[in-house]
Amino acid sequence: MRIVVVGASGTIGRAVVAELGQRHEIVEVGRNSGKVRFDATDPASIRAGLELVGTFDAIVATFGSVKFAPLAEMDAAGYGIGLADKLMGQVNLVLIGREFIADGGSFTLTSGILSRDPVAGGSSASMVNGALEAWVQAAAIELPRGLRINCVCPGLLEETAVSFGAFFPGHVPVSSARVAKAYAKSVEGRLTGRVFEVF
Amino acid sequence: MRIVVVGASGTIGRAVVAELGQRHEIVEVGRNSGKVRFDATDPASIRAGLELVGTFDAIVATFGSVKFAPLAEMDAAGYGIGLADKLMGQVNLVLIGREFIADGGSFTLTSGILSRDPVAGGSSASMVNGALEAWVQAAAIELPRGLRINCVCPGLLEETAVSFGAFFPGHVPVSSARVAKAYAKSVEGRLTGRVFEVF
Repeated sequence: MRIVVVGASGTIGRAVVAELGQRHEIVEVGRNSGKVRFDATDPASIRAGLELVGTFDAIVATFGSVKFAPLAEMDAAGYGIGLADKLMGQVNLVLIGREFIADGGSFTLTSGILSRDPVAGGSSASMVNGALEAWVQAAAIELPRGLRINCVCPGLLEETAVSFGAFFPGHVPVSSARVAKAYAKSVEGRLTGRVFEVF
Repeated sequence: MRIVVVGASGTIGRAVVAELGQRHEIVEVGRNSGKVRFDATDPASIRAGLELVGTFDAIVATFGSVKFAPLAEMDAAGYGIGLADKLMGQVNLVLIGREFIADGGSFTLTSGILSRDPVAGGSSASMVNGALEAWVQAAAIELPRGLRINCVCPGLLEETAVSFGAFFPGHVPVSSARVAKAYAKSVEGRLTGRVFEVF
């Protein structure tokens, strides 16, 4: 398969490239790095980027910024960051990517454990992750041409826990290599409309 | 208690007013009707409206528009409607309402069954409802002064099923009177960070 990994330079992106690159051709995409570069918060930029990529069989999205801050400091603008980037960035990638992807292709998005196991300061991540998980289940039943869509919901990463573990009391970190297996399950398997929890 | 019901003229809003109005003072709020009027998609309008309301012990939000359309017709602007109205309208009501609500007060928001049981054409509702349910669970752990927050997740309403039941195959409609009981559980009970399913 020819697989587009958007966010390929991130911790999860690198693990996905290492996992799926063993068996498939990977097109690494990033905002500031990768073979093709585009800004997933800008639909026109996504479209221009995917036109450069050419044909492909799968898109894996492993990017997405949200604001982490105490609820007391959060306002509409603060939530807007995550809604525009991690949520609508990934959603737009599907909405535009469906025009380019091969029949039977798959989309795999990334949410995160805060959708169901919140921590202080993470209310925007919870919001966005919950939106993504519900949307993927809804989108799956309407995609044409045998297209599939799933979402990987990783726990706190071992790599992230080094710096931010104190903000996730009691969370048991998972390796990005183990998380990457869930992306392989989505891309190489046949399931659709699923949320793969890895924590 | 003094309870502000935002969206009081809607199907659920009227049922909530009928249920809670038996035991409490209700301040009915709507965009175009009610004792106090404000546009919950506009933070300045929310603030001006709540200043008029004065002190209160609970806010119940029973409003929220989303675009219903086939996934094939949905784009970023289409999803933006629900994100601005049903999602951020309710979230902003909490963010601003927390400045005005009495100690130990409660917020009760409204999601809907499409968060976990999607139908064709409802992908925006699924997205927004999933976001609300995850956010409420996250916000609950950070609210100060004993404030509580819950979300009611109603199924297809009997009143709605008359017109739109065909879009919800196999869904068993629930009465708005039964849904209203969940708002009473949230406002008059002690739970927080919960999603009350009524379907």
